Amino acid sequence: MSGLAAWHRLISNRDPSMLADLLADDVVFHSPVVHSPQVGRARTTMYLAGAIHVLGNSSFRYVRQVCQGHNAVLEFRADIDGVEVNGVDMISFDADGRICDFTVMLRPLKGIQIVRERMAELLAAMAGGGQTSGG
Amino acid sequence: MSGLAAWHRLISNRDPSMLADLLADDVVFHSPVVHSPQVGRARTTMYLAGAIHVLGNSSFRYVRQVCQGHNAVLEFRADIDGVEVNGVDMISFDADGRICDFTVMLRPLKGIQIVRERMAELLAAMAGGGQTSGG
Repeated sequence: MSGLAAWHRLISNRDPSMLADLLADDVVFHSPVVHSPQVGRARTTMYLAGAIHVLGNSSFRYVRQVCQGHNAVLEFRADIDGVEVNGVDMISFDADGRICDFTVMLRPLKGIQIVRERMAELLAAMAGGGQTSGG
Repeated sequence: MSGLAAWHRLISNRDPSMLADLLADDVVFHSPVVHSPQVGRARTTMYLAGAIHVLGNSSFRYVRQVCQGHNAVLEFRADIDGVEVNGVDMISFDADGRICDFTVMLRPLKGIQIVRERMAELLAAMAGGGQTSGG
């Protein structure tokens, strides 16, 4: 599963630019917060790049990996300002090793709430031109 | 992984009494809502039996299964009063095929909220003697 190795490199490098080659054109992203699937590479890139920014501090680490066939489930833990976040990246790869489906789930409730809050701030800043003074 | 087959039988039969043989003495349950791990067979049985009651209507079905080694990840979908709930049961089995670790995560936020609400009602009713008039 070469796509999975590429995903791990992307996370190690905290480099969302690698998503361009790794995501299938018609990839579908399933958010931990929102019901509606987000379809296509552009929207999926926006959400995944945001998640890497919000969750990808030095505390982020994968703690369990379960792979079978074209599916990989990666469990992670991270700390955001003292709030522990535990989650899974559930990734399906197509025949070319590109990601065609990406589902994120988080626990506990406080963990979801802080990620939701930080993602909303980030997406609002991006929509407004990306000028923020920190945080 | 005979423990996994036993879990599927338990879910097919909606029969929490099968948990007695399936859970290890020192099993740990990780709730989708609460941070603190719940330790031991008694507490884990309470939460899992509650979850089977709350989520186990006719709409409940597993939609993806990813297994490797002693880990199984079972993704499910269910509908509770029109609210779609998508989640995972992440199960670790010990050398005897008994469940030693059980993590549940849910999405989207509305799905977590309705399960949390129904679980709280159920656990309160159980603590109060179990007499409820329906719902």
